[in-house]
Amino acid sequence: MLTRKQIADATEKVLAMFDKQKIAYTPEEKANFEVSDFGLSMLEKIGLELIVYVNNNIYCAKEMGLMPFQICPEHRHPTRGDKSGKMETFRCRAGEVYLYISGDPTENIKGKVPEGKEDTFTVFHEIVLHPGEQYTIMPDTLHWFQGGPEGAIVSEFSTTSTDEDDIFTDPDIKRFTEIAD
Amino acid sequence: MLTRKQIADATEKVLAMFDKQKIAYTPEEKANFEVSDFGLSMLEKIGLELIVYVNNNIYCAKEMGLMPFQICPEHRHPTRGDKSGKMETFRCRAGEVYLYISGDPTENIKGKVPEGKEDTFTVFHEIVLHPGEQYTIMPDTLHWFQGGPEGAIVSEFSTTSTDEDDIFTDPDIKRFTEIAD
Repeated sequence: MLTRKQIADATEKVLAMFDKQKIAYTPEEKANFEVSDFGLSMLEKIGLELIVYVNNNIYCAKEMGLMPFQICPEHRHPTRGDKSGKMETFRCRAGEVYLYISGDPTENIKGKVPEGKEDTFTVFHEIVLHPGEQYTIMPDTLHWFQGGPEGAIVSEFSTTSTDEDDIFTDPDIKRFTEIAD
Repeated sequence: MLTRKQIADATEKVLAMFDKQKIAYTPEEKANFEVSDFGLSMLEKIGLELIVYVNNNIYCAKEMGLMPFQICPEHRHPTRGDKSGKMETFRCRAGEVYLYISGDPTENIKGKVPEGKEDTFTVFHEIVLHPGEQYTIMPDTLHWFQGGPEGAIVSEFSTTSTDEDDIFTDPDIKRFTEIAD
């Protein structure tokens, strides 16, 4: 649950990061800026802010912002029947991104899992992205990612985005943010 | 035909525009920076510079640069059999883009067609994109675009890019640039 004030504050913070990085957006994109707490009510620790530039039946592009050490929680995009799960390329535009996918766990990872949520993070193969670096996540791959000490801006290029299909490790997650006045 | 010096100069000019806009790229992307004159040997008037971020069998993303008044010449992405032509979303990141597609011709367009090449531009429905604005071009649509007085940076999000399929209006165009030493 987020209050309107929390949404306005997060919007302001992340758009200030976009401004600093000279990433332009329209007034409509600002008005529709997406702030998600994944239903966990701990936005600064687990949450994501973004603009969807385009999402049609073939491709999708978004600009995502992460506040310092903010986490997009662990999930995967499942293949259903002959409909392949979402494939996505993350390109770091600013800051540092700590990306974790299934595979050999990395020792001494840079990311920090919030206290009390340890059970909901299960993959620890670390990929660190600096500005200009990118990584493509194949369908069905469990992954989570976190902004570094300055936060991060990440461009996502992908197949069609269907958030309602995502499978999260944390059973408490609701993909669609509830707003309280 | 381009000389290595022309390619190096254009690379330097356009990457300076990227730097000014804080668009990051890796050393490998710099080394593979693409400069195309479409075989016309008039690069500053007709040409395009770009980095391909990703191009797989579903989606593609590029960062394109246009020098002041430089034109990406008129072409379309044809549908062949049941393989739909490329659909592409152009998002202006910096500068101004004058985009022309088939449809009602706009009077007093902002773009400037190079002398002697008037016959090779046939569509004049104008869409002007400022930073943060974007437009999606459907498959099979004839289009060309030009940078404004300061040039432009344009993100392209699209279906798979298969340059060899493009159909250009100008019969003199060769999509793959020849390099002279």
